Amino acid sequence: MAGKRFSEKHRLVYYDGDRTYHASIPMLVNLMVLASEDQSEELGVGTEEVSKYGVGWVVTQYLMTINDLPKIGLTIELSTEATAHNKFFCERRFSIADEAGNSLLEANSNFVLMNHKTRRMGKLIPELLDPYGSDEVKRITRLPRVPKITDDQGTVSKEYPVRYFDLDTNGHVNNSHYFEWLLDVLPAEFLQTHIPTRLNIQYHKEIQYGHIVKSEVVKTNETDTEINTLHKMTVNGEIYCEAECSWKTVTAN
Amino acid sequence: MAGKRFSEKHRLVYYDGDRTYHASIPMLVNLMVLASEDQSEELGVGTEEVSKYGVGWVVTQYLMTINDLPKIGLTIELSTEATAHNKFFCERRFSIADEAGNSLLEANSNFVLMNHKTRRMGKLIPELLDPYGSDEVKRITRLPRVPKITDDQGTVSKEYPVRYFDLDTNGHVNNSHYFEWLLDVLPAEFLQTHIPTRLNIQYHKEIQYGHIVKSEVVKTNETDTEINTLHKMTVNGEIYCEAECSWKTVTAN
Repeated sequence: MAGKRFSEKHRLVYYDGDRTYHASIPMLVNLMVLASEDQSEELGVGTEEVSKYGVGWVVTQYLMTINDLPKIGLTIELSTEATAHNKFFCERRFSIADEAGNSLLEANSNFVLMNHKTRRMGKLIPELLDPYGSDEVKRITRLPRVPKITDDQGTVSKEYPVRYFDLDTNGHVNNSHYFEWLLDVLPAEFLQTHIPTRLNIQYHKEIQYGHIVKSEVVKTNETDTEINTLHKMTVNGEIYCEAECSWKTVTAN
Repeated sequence: MAGKRFSEKHRLVYYDGDRTYHASIPMLVNLMVLASEDQSEELGVGTEEVSKYGVGWVVTQYLMTINDLPKIGLTIELSTEATAHNKFFCERRFSIADEAGNSLLEANSNFVLMNHKTRRMGKLIPELLDPYGSDEVKRITRLPRVPKITDDQGTVSKEYPVRYFDLDTNGHVNNSHYFEWLLDVLPAEFLQTHIPTRLNIQYHKEIQYGHIVKSEVVKTNETDTEINTLHKMTVNGEIYCEAECSWKTVTAN
Protein backbone atom coordinates (compact mmCIF):
# COMPACT_ATOMS: atom_id res chain seq x y z
CA MET A 1 0.00 0.00 0.00
CA ALA A 2 1.20 3.47 -0.84
CA GLY A 3 0.61 6.74 0.98
CA LYS A 4 3.25 9.15 2.20
CA ARG A 5 4.22 8.42 5.78
CA PHE A 6 4.62 11.29 8.25
CA SER A 7 6.24 10.96 11.67
CA GLU A 8 6.99 13.27 14.56
CA LYS A 9 8.09 12.94 18.15
CA HIS A 10 6.26 14.09 21.28
CA ARG A 11 7.42 14.24 24.90
CA LEU A 12 4.59 13.07 27.17
CA VAL A 13 4.16 15.68 29.91
CA TYR A 14 2.17 15.65 33.15
CA TYR A 15 -1.08 16.93 31.67
CA ASP A 16 -1.02 14.18 29.00
CA GLY A 17 -1.46 11.58 31.73
CA ASP A 18 -3.96 10.22 34.21
CA ARG A 19 -3.74 8.63 37.65
CA THR A 20 -2.12 5.47 36.27
CA TYR A 21 0.89 7.54 35.06
CA HIS A 22 0.02 6.41 31.52
CA ALA A 23 -0.86 8.80 28.72
CA SER A 24 -4.65 9.01 28.61
CA ILE A 25 -6.60 7.77 25.60
CA PRO A 26 -8.21 11.21 25.01
CA MET A 27 -4.74 12.79 24.86
CA LEU A 28 -3.35 10.08 22.54
CA VAL A 29 -6.26 10.80 20.19
CA ASN A 30 -5.31 14.50 20.28
CA LEU A 31 -1.75 13.55 19.37
CA MET A 32 -2.74 11.24 16.50
CA VAL A 33 -4.90 14.00 15.02
CA LEU A 34 -2.01 16.44 15.52
CA ALA A 35 0.25 14.20 13.41
CA SER A 36 -2.30 14.15 10.59
CA GLU A 37 -2.78 17.93 10.83
CA ASP A 38 0.97 18.47 10.70
CA GLN A 39 1.26 16.17 7.68
CA SER A 40 -1.52 18.10 5.93
CA GLU A 41 0.22 21.43 6.61
CA GLU A 42 3.50 20.04 5.26
CA LEU A 43 1.76 18.88 2.09
CA GLY A 44 0.09 22.26 1.58
CA VAL A 45 -3.43 21.01 2.31
CA GLY A 46 -3.89 22.18 5.90
CA THR A 47 -7.17 23.26 7.48
CA GLU A 48 -7.06 26.72 5.88
CA GLU A 49 -6.59 25.34 2.36
CA VAL A 50 -9.29 22.70 2.88
CA SER A 51 -11.81 25.26 4.10
CA LYS A 52 -11.37 27.25 0.86
CA TYR A 53 -13.34 24.44 -0.78
CA GLY A 54 -16.16 24.87 1.75
CA VAL A 55 -15.44 21.48 3.28
CA GLY A 56 -13.67 19.88 6.23
CA TRP A 57 -12.35 16.41 7.07
CA VAL A 58 -14.53 14.45 9.47
CA VAL A 59 -13.67 11.09 11.02
CA THR A 60 -16.42 8.45 10.89
CA GLN A 61 -14.66 5.56 12.65
CA TYR A 62 -11.51 4.63 14.54
CA LEU A 63 -10.40 1.07 15.27
CA MET A 64 -7.47 0.99 17.69
CA THR A 65 -5.33 -1.89 18.92
CA ILE A 66 -3.46 -0.94 22.06
CA ASN A 67 -0.44 -3.06 23.01
CA ASP A 68 0.60 -0.79 25.84
CA LEU A 69 -0.06 2.76 26.98
CA PRO A 70 3.14 4.83 27.28
CA LYS A 71 4.12 6.30 30.64
CA ILE A 72 4.40 10.02 31.28
CA GLY A 73 7.94 11.36 30.79
CA LEU A 74 8.66 9.16 27.76
CA THR A 75 9.02 10.46 24.23
CA ILE A 76 6.82 8.73 21.68
CA GLU A 77 6.85 8.70 17.90
CA LEU A 78 3.55 9.41 16.15
CA SER A 79 3.20 8.19 12.57
CA THR A 80 0.36 8.45 10.08
CA GLU A 81 -0.42 7.83 6.43
CA ALA A 82 -3.46 8.02 4.19
CA THR A 83 -3.35 4.50 2.78
CA ALA A 84 -6.32 4.26 0.43
CA HIS A 85 -9.46 6.01 -0.79
CA ASN A 86 -12.48 5.50 -2.98
CA LYS A 87 -14.94 8.15 -4.20
CA PHE A 88 -16.22 9.02 -0.75
CA PHE A 89 -14.03 7.50 1.94
CA CYS A 90 -10.42 7.94 2.91
CA GLU A 91 -8.59 5.35 5.00
CA ARG A 92 -5.90 6.65 7.34
CA ARG A 93 -3.61 4.66 9.59
CA PHE A 94 -1.90 5.85 12.75
CA SER A 95 0.73 4.30 14.92
CA ILE A 96 2.41 5.23 18.16
CA ALA A 97 5.79 3.73 19.05
CA ASP A 98 8.22 4.10 21.92
CA GLU A 99 11.76 5.37 21.37
CA ALA A 100 13.06 1.84 20.76
CA GLY A 101 10.52 1.49 17.93
CA ASN A 102 8.17 -0.89 19.77
CA SER A 103 4.59 -0.49 18.63
CA LEU A 104 2.30 0.75 21.41
CA LEU A 105 -0.84 1.58 19.46
CA GLU A 106 -2.05 0.93 15.92
CA ALA A 107 -5.19 2.52 14.52
CA ASN A 108 -7.11 2.45 11.30
CA SER A 109 -9.72 5.10 10.55
CA ASN A 110 -12.16 6.38 7.93
CA PHE A 111 -12.50 10.02 7.01
CA VAL A 112 -14.95 11.85 4.75
CA LEU A 113 -15.19 15.41 3.46
CA MET A 114 -18.16 17.24 4.92
CA ASN A 115 -19.68 20.28 3.25
CA HIS A 116 -19.73 23.18 5.73
CA LYS A 117 -23.05 24.55 4.45
CA THR A 118 -25.08 21.39 3.96
CA ARG A 119 -23.33 19.47 6.83
CA ARG A 120 -23.38 16.44 4.48
CA MET A 121 -20.54 14.35 3.14
CA GLY A 122 -19.62 14.78 -0.49
CA LYS A 123 -17.24 13.26 -3.06
CA LEU A 124 -13.56 13.51 -2.22
CA ILE A 125 -11.80 16.44 -3.96
CA PRO A 126 -8.66 15.42 -5.94
CA GLU A 127 -6.78 18.66 -5.10
CA LEU A 128 -7.18 17.92 -1.38
CA LEU A 129 -6.41 14.22 -1.69
CA ASP A 130 -3.64 13.79 -4.28
CA PRO A 131 -0.83 15.24 -2.12
CA TYR A 132 -1.13 12.28 0.32
CA GLY A 133 -0.32 9.74 -2.41
CA SER A 134 -2.90 7.24 -1.18
CA ASP A 135 -4.06 4.37 -3.40
CA GLU A 136 -7.33 4.71 -5.29
CA VAL A 137 -9.30 1.53 -4.60
CA LYS A 138 -12.81 0.29 -5.22
CA ARG A 139 -13.44 -0.64 -1.61
CA ILE A 140 -11.53 0.57 1.38
CA THR A 141 -10.96 -1.81 4.32
CA ARG A 142 -14.32 -2.47 5.93
CA LEU A 143 -13.95 -1.69 9.62
CA PRO A 144 -16.17 -3.91 11.82
CA ARG A 145 -19.47 -2.37 12.93
CA VAL A 146 -20.00 -1.78 16.63
CA PRO A 147 -22.66 -4.18 18.01
CA LYS A 148 -25.86 -2.50 19.19
CA ILE A 149 -26.73 -2.36 22.87
CA THR A 150 -30.00 -4.26 23.22
CA ASP A 151 -32.94 -3.03 25.31
CA ASP A 152 -32.49 -5.79 27.89
CA GLN A 153 -28.89 -4.80 28.62
CA GLY A 154 -29.07 -2.50 31.62
CA THR A 155 -26.64 0.35 31.12
CA VAL A 156 -24.98 2.78 33.49
CA SER A 157 -25.02 6.40 32.29
CA LYS A 158 -23.82 9.93 32.97
CA GLU A 159 -24.71 13.19 31.25
CA TYR A 160 -22.17 15.60 29.78
CA PRO A 161 -23.27 19.07 28.69
CA VAL A 162 -20.91 20.18 25.88
CA ARG A 163 -18.58 22.90 27.20
CA TYR A 164 -17.13 25.94 25.47
CA PHE A 165 -13.59 24.54 25.69
CA ASP A 166 -14.71 21.24 24.12
CA LEU A 167 -14.84 23.13 20.82
CA ASP A 168 -11.77 23.42 18.62
CA THR A 169 -10.79 26.42 16.49
CA ASN A 170 -13.37 25.39 13.88
CA GLY A 171 -16.21 25.31 16.37
CA HIS A 172 -16.47 21.49 16.23
CA VAL A 173 -16.30 19.32 19.31
CA ASN A 174 -12.68 18.19 19.56
CA ASN A 175 -12.61 14.46 18.92
CA SER A 176 -10.77 13.63 22.14
CA HIS A 177 -13.79 14.70 24.22
CA TYR A 178 -15.88 11.83 22.80
CA PHE A 179 -13.30 9.54 24.40
CA GLU A 180 -13.54 11.41 27.69
CA TRP A 181 -17.34 11.00 27.79
CA LEU A 182 -16.97 7.39 26.65
CA LEU A 183 -14.54 6.46 29.42
CA ASP A 184 -15.50 8.76 32.33
CA VAL A 185 -18.83 6.96 32.70
CA LEU A 186 -16.88 3.92 34.01
CA PRO A 187 -16.01 3.83 37.74
CA ALA A 188 -12.67 5.42 38.72
CA GLU A 189 -11.58 2.16 40.40
CA PHE A 190 -12.05 0.35 37.08
CA LEU A 191 -10.16 2.98 35.05
CA GLN A 192 -7.27 2.89 37.53
CA THR A 193 -6.84 -0.86 37.20
CA HIS A 194 -7.62 -1.54 33.54
CA ILE A 195 -6.33 -0.34 30.20
CA PRO A 196 -8.05 -0.76 26.83
CA THR A 197 -6.58 -3.31 24.41
CA ARG A 198 -8.99 -2.64 21.55
CA LEU A 199 -11.29 0.29 20.91
CA ASN A 200 -13.76 0.57 18.04
CA ILE A 201 -15.71 3.84 17.79
CA GLN A 202 -18.26 4.86 15.17
CA TYR A 203 -19.45 8.45 14.76
CA HIS A 204 -22.96 8.78 13.33
CA LYS A 205 -23.86 12.43 13.92
CA GLU A 206 -22.02 15.56 14.96
CA ILE A 207 -22.35 16.53 18.62
CA GLN A 208 -22.61 20.31 19.03
CA TYR A 209 -22.35 23.09 21.61
CA GLY A 210 -25.58 23.22 23.63
CA HIS A 211 -26.10 19.44 23.41
CA ILE A 212 -26.34 17.35 26.55
CA VAL A 213 -24.60 14.06 25.79
CA LYS A 214 -25.83 10.96 27.57
CA SER A 215 -22.99 8.44 27.69
CA GLU A 216 -24.04 4.85 28.44
CA VAL A 217 -22.01 1.73 29.08
CA VAL A 218 -22.67 -1.96 29.70
CA LYS A 219 -20.22 -4.77 30.50
CA THR A 220 -20.88 -7.54 27.98
CA ASN A 221 -18.22 -10.06 28.88
CA GLU A 222 -15.94 -10.62 31.81
CA THR A 223 -13.43 -13.45 32.03
CA ASP A 224 -10.17 -13.72 33.94
CA THR A 225 -8.25 -12.34 30.99
CA GLU A 226 -10.64 -10.02 29.20
CA ILE A 227 -13.49 -7.62 29.85
CA ASN A 228 -15.59 -6.07 27.11
CA THR A 229 -17.76 -2.96 27.30
CA LEU A 230 -20.32 -1.59 24.85
CA HIS A 231 -20.99 2.15 24.72
CA LYS A 232 -23.40 4.58 23.15
CA MET A 233 -23.83 8.34 23.25
CA THR A 234 -27.20 9.88 22.66
CA VAL A 235 -28.57 13.42 22.44
CA ASN A 236 -32.30 13.73 23.06
CA GLY A 237 -32.63 9.95 22.68
CA GLU A 238 -30.96 9.84 19.26
CA ILE A 239 -27.74 7.83 18.82
CA TYR A 240 -24.73 10.01 17.91
CA CYS A 241 -21.86 7.64 18.62
CA GLU A 242 -21.31 3.94 19.41
CA ALA A 243 -18.23 2.13 20.64
CA GLU A 244 -16.93 -1.16 21.93
CA CYS A 245 -13.91 -1.64 24.07
CA SER A 246 -11.83 -4.59 25.33
CA TRP A 247 -9.84 -4.25 28.54
CA LYS A 248 -7.03 -5.93 30.41
CA THR A 249 -6.17 -5.67 34.07
CA VAL A 250 -3.08 -3.74 35.08
CA THR A 251 -1.45 -3.33 38.47
CA ALA A 252 -2.36 0.00 40.03
CA ASN A 253 0.47 2.45 40.80
CA MET B 1 15.38 39.66 43.44
CA ALA B 2 17.16 36.38 43.06
CA GLY B 3 15.79 33.00 42.02
CA LYS B 4 17.07 30.83 39.18
CA ARG B 5 15.17 31.49 36.01
CA PHE B 6 14.02 28.60 33.83
CA SER B 7 12.75 28.95 30.25
CA GLU B 8 11.49 26.60 27.57
CA LYS B 9 9.71 26.90 24.25
CA HIS B 10 6.35 25.41 23.25
CA ARG B 11 4.65 25.24 19.87
CA LEU B 12 0.94 25.97 20.29
CA VAL B 13 -1.00 23.23 18.52
CA TYR B 14 -4.67 22.88 17.60
CA TYR B 15 -5.80 21.34 20.90
CA ASP B 16 -4.18 24.19 22.87
CA GLY B 17 -6.69 26.61 21.34
CA ASP B 18 -10.34 27.58 21.38
CA ARG B 19 -12.77 29.03 18.85
CA THR B 20 -11.01 32.40 18.84
CA TYR B 21 -7.81 30.72 17.50
CA HIS B 22 -6.05 31.91 20.68
CA ALA B 23 -4.45 29.56 23.18
CA SER B 24 -7.03 28.95 25.91
CA ILE B 25 -6.43 30.10 29.49
CA PRO B 26 -6.78 26.54 30.86
CA MET B 27 -4.05 25.34 28.47
CA LEU B 28 -1.75 28.29 29.27
CA VAL B 29 -2.07 27.36 32.96
CA ASN B 30 -1.06 23.78 32.06
CA LEU B 31 1.97 25.16 30.25
CA MET B 32 3.04 27.47 33.10
CA VAL B 33 2.86 24.56 35.54
CA LEU B 34 4.82 22.44 33.06
CA ALA B 35 7.64 25.00 33.08
CA SER B 36 7.81 24.90 36.88
CA GLU B 37 7.72 21.07 36.87
CA ASP B 38 10.52 20.96 34.30
CA GLN B 39 12.59 23.41 36.37
CA SER B 40 12.06 21.28 39.47
CA GLU B 41 13.18 18.13 37.62
CA GLU B 42 16.26 19.93 36.34
CA LEU B 43 17.15 21.04 39.87
CA GLY B 44 16.69 17.52 41.25
CA VAL B 45 13.56 18.35 43.25
CA GLY B 46 10.86 16.97 40.97
CA THR B 47 7.56 15.46 42.10
CA GLU B 48 9.12 12.11 43.01
CA GLU B 49 11.79 13.69 45.25
CA VAL B 50 9.22 16.01 46.89
CA SER B 51 6.86 13.14 47.67
CA LYS B 52 9.66 11.36 49.58
CA TYR B 53 9.13 14.02 52.25
CA GLY B 54 5.42 13.16 52.41
CA VAL B 55 4.47 16.53 50.96
CA GLY B 56 3.47 18.18 47.70
CA TRP B 57 3.44 21.74 46.31
CA VAL B 58 0.01 23.33 46.23
CA VAL B 59 -0.86 26.70 44.66
CA THR B 60 -2.97 29.02 46.81
CA GLN B 61 -3.28 31.99 44.44
CA TYR B 62 -2.49 33.18 40.91
CA LEU B 63 -2.59 36.80 39.79
CA MET B 64 -2.24 37.11 36.01
CA THR B 65 -1.90 40.12 33.76
CA ILE B 66 -2.67 39.25 30.18
CA ASN B 67 -1.45 41.63 27.49
CA ASP B 68 -2.44 39.37 24.64
CA LEU B 69 -3.32 35.73 24.13
CA PRO B 70 -1.05 34.00 21.59
CA LYS B 71 -2.56 32.51 18.44
CA ILE B 72 -2.41 28.80 17.63
CA GLY B 73 0.58 27.89 15.44
CA LEU B 74 2.97 30.29 17.18
CA THR B 75 5.85 29.20 19.38
CA ILE B 76 5.89 30.79 22.82
CA GLU B 77 8.56 31.00 25.50
CA LEU B 78 7.52 30.00 29.02
CA SER B 79 9.66 31.34 31.88
CA THR B 80 9.43 30.88 35.62
CA GLU B 81 11.38 31.56 38.80
CA ALA B 82 10.82 31.16 42.52
CA THR B 83 11.50 34.72 43.60
CA ALA B 84 11.03 34.75 47.38
CA HIS B 85 9.85 32.73 50.35
CA ASN B 86 9.21 33.00 54.06
CA LYS B 87 8.62 30.17 56.54
CA PHE B 88 5.37 29.00 54.93
CA PHE B 89 4.89 30.63 51.55
CA CYS B 90 6.80 30.54 48.32
CA GLU B 91 6.34 33.22 45.66
CA ARG B 92 6.73 32.10 42.05
CA ARG B 93 6.55 34.22 38.93
CA PHE B 94 5.68 33.08 35.43
CA SER B 95 5.86 34.82 32.10
CA ILE B 96 4.87 33.94 28.57
CA ALA B 97 6.46 35.76 25.64
CA ASP B 98 6.20 35.52 21.87
CA GLU B 99 9.23 34.68 19.72
CA ALA B 100 10.18 38.36 19.41
CA GLY B 101 10.34 38.55 23.20
CA ASN B 102 7.13 40.57 23.66
CA SER B 103 5.46 39.84 26.96
CA LEU B 104 2.02 38.24 26.53
CA LEU B 105 1.26 37.14 30.08
CA GLU B 106 2.82 37.82 33.50
CA ALA B 107 1.75 35.96 36.61
CA ASN B 108 2.65 35.96 40.27
CA SER B 109 1.63 33.09 42.51
CA ASN B 110 1.88 31.67 46.01
CA PHE B 111 2.69 28.05 46.76
CA VAL B 112 2.74 26.08 50.01
CA LEU B 113 3.85 22.58 50.94
CA MET B 114 0.93 20.38 51.88
CA ASN B 115 1.37 17.26 54.00
CA HIS B 116 -0.10 14.28 52.16
CA LYS B 117 -1.39 12.63 55.33
CA THR B 118 -2.81 15.57 57.26
CA ARG B 119 -3.82 17.52 54.06
CA ARG B 120 -2.52 20.63 55.90
CA MET B 121 0.19 23.08 54.95
CA GLY B 122 3.45 22.91 56.88
CA LYS B 123 6.76 24.78 57.13
CA LEU B 124 8.78 24.89 53.92
CA ILE B 125 11.56 22.27 53.80
CA PRO B 126 15.06 23.70 53.05
CA GLU B 127 16.14 20.65 51.01
CA LEU B 128 13.18 21.17 48.67
CA LEU B 129 13.53 24.95 48.51
CA ASP B 130 17.25 25.79 48.43
CA PRO B 131 17.87 24.55 44.86
CA TYR B 132 15.64 27.34 43.45
CA GLY B 133 17.85 30.09 44.95
CA SER B 134 14.90 32.23 45.99
CA ASP B 135 15.33 35.06 48.53
CA GLU B 136 14.37 34.46 52.13
CA VAL B 137 12.16 37.37 53.16
CA LYS B 138 9.96 38.25 56.11
CA ARG B 139 6.91 38.95 54.01
CA ILE B 140 6.28 37.81 50.48
CA THR B 141 4.37 40.10 48.12
CA ARG B 142 0.80 40.34 49.33
CA LEU B 143 -1.46 39.44 46.43
CA PRO B 144 -4.80 41.30 46.51
CA ARG B 145 -7.75 39.37 47.96
CA VAL B 146 -10.63 38.54 45.68
CA PRO B 147 -13.73 40.58 46.66
CA LYS B 148 -16.65 38.51 47.98
CA ILE B 149 -19.83 38.12 45.95
CA THR B 150 -22.58 39.65 48.10
CA ASP B 151 -26.00 38.05 48.60
CA ASP B 152 -27.79 40.71 46.56
CA GLN B 153 -25.64 40.06 43.48
CA GLY B 154 -27.62 37.62 41.38
CA THR B 155 -25.24 35.06 39.91
CA VAL B 156 -25.46 32.72 36.94
CA SER B 157 -24.26 29.19 37.67
CA LYS B 158 -23.50 25.76 36.19
CA GLU B 159 -22.58 22.51 37.88
CA TYR B 160 -19.49 20.46 37.04
CA PRO B 161 -19.13 16.94 38.43
CA VAL B 162 -15.38 16.21 38.74
CA ARG B 163 -14.36 13.71 36.04
CA TYR B 164 -11.79 10.93 36.12
CA PHE B 165 -9.60 12.68 33.54
CA ASP B 166 -9.65 15.92 35.59
CA LEU B 167 -7.22 14.17 37.94
CA ASP B 168 -3.50 14.30 37.34
CA THR B 169 -0.98 11.54 38.02
CA ASN B 170 -1.07 12.41 41.75
CA GLY B 171 -4.84 12.06 41.98
CA HIS B 172 -5.34 15.83 42.43
CA VAL B 173 -7.61 17.87 40.22
CA ASN B 174 -5.34 19.37 37.57
CA ASN B 175 -5.27 23.11 38.13
CA SER B 176 -6.31 23.98 34.59
CA HIS B 177 -9.79 22.50 35.17
CA TYR B 178 -10.59 25.17 37.77
CA PHE B 179 -10.13 27.67 34.94
CA GLU B 180 -12.39 25.64 32.66
CA TRP B 181 -15.19 25.64 35.29
CA LEU B 182 -14.53 29.32 36.00
CA LEU B 183 -14.85 30.38 32.37
CA ASP B 184 -17.31 27.85 30.87
CA VAL B 185 -20.12 29.27 33.01
CA LEU B 186 -19.99 32.44 30.85
CA PRO B 187 -22.01 32.46 27.59
CA ALA B 188 -20.16 31.20 24.48
CA GLU B 189 -20.92 34.47 22.67
CA PHE B 190 -19.14 36.37 25.44
CA LEU B 191 -16.08 34.06 25.44
CA GLN B 192 -15.80 34.37 21.66
CA THR B 193 -15.67 38.14 21.74
CA HIS B 194 -13.72 38.90 24.94
CA ILE B 195 -10.34 38.01 26.36
CA PRO B 196 -9.24 38.38 29.99
CA THR B 197 -6.79 41.16 30.78
CA ARG B 198 -6.41 40.36 34.50
CA LEU B 199 -7.28 37.24 36.43
CA ASN B 200 -6.96 36.82 40.19
CA ILE B 201 -7.81 33.38 41.59
CA GLN B 202 -7.66 32.20 45.20
CA TYR B 203 -7.82 28.53 46.17
CA HIS B 204 -9.28 27.87 49.62
CA LYS B 205 -9.91 24.13 49.66
CA GLU B 206 -9.00 21.17 47.48
CA ILE B 207 -11.70 20.01 45.07
CA GLN B 208 -11.75 16.20 44.78
CA TYR B 209 -13.09 13.36 42.64
CA GLY B 210 -16.74 12.80 43.47
CA HIS B 211 -17.37 16.50 44.16
CA ILE B 212 -19.97 18.41 42.19
CA VAL B 213 -18.57 21.90 41.67
CA LYS B 214 -21.03 24.77 41.38
CA SER B 215 -19.38 27.58 39.44
CA GLU B 216 -21.04 30.99 39.79
CA VAL B 217 -20.39 34.29 38.05
CA VAL B 218 -21.69 37.84 38.24
CA LYS B 219 -20.84 40.87 36.08
CA THR B 220 -19.83 43.67 38.47
CA ASN B 221 -18.86 46.40 36.07
CA GLU B 222 -19.38 47.09 32.41
CA THR B 223 -18.08 50.16 30.62
CA ASP B 224 -17.12 50.71 26.99
CA THR B 225 -13.56 49.69 27.69
CA GLU B 226 -13.74 47.18 30.53
CA ILE B 227 -15.95 44.47 31.95
CA ASN B 228 -15.34 42.82 35.32
CA THR B 229 -16.66 39.49 36.56
CA LEU B 230 -16.60 37.95 40.03
CA HIS B 231 -16.57 34.17 40.43
CA LYS B 232 -16.92 31.57 43.12
CA MET B 233 -16.87 27.77 43.19
CA THR B 234 -18.67 25.90 45.90
CA VAL B 235 -19.09 22.25 46.85
CA ASN B 236 -22.14 21.52 49.01
CA GLY B 237 -22.51 25.25 49.68
CA GLU B 238 -18.95 25.69 50.94
CA ILE B 239 -16.59 28.07 49.11
CA TYR B 240 -13.59 26.27 47.55
CA CYS B 241 -12.31 28.90 45.14
CA GLU B 242 -12.88 32.59 44.35
CA ALA B 243 -11.78 34.67 41.40
CA GLU B 244 -12.12 38.02 39.71
CA CYS B 245 -11.53 38.75 36.08
CA SER B 246 -11.27 41.83 33.88
CA TRP B 247 -12.08 41.57 30.19
CA LYS B 248 -11.58 43.48 26.96
CA THR B 249 -13.53 43.14 23.74
CA VAL B 250 -11.85 41.50 20.76
CA THR B 251 -13.03 41.12 17.20
CA ALA B 252 -14.39 37.63 16.59
CA ASN B 253 -12.68 35.45 13.94
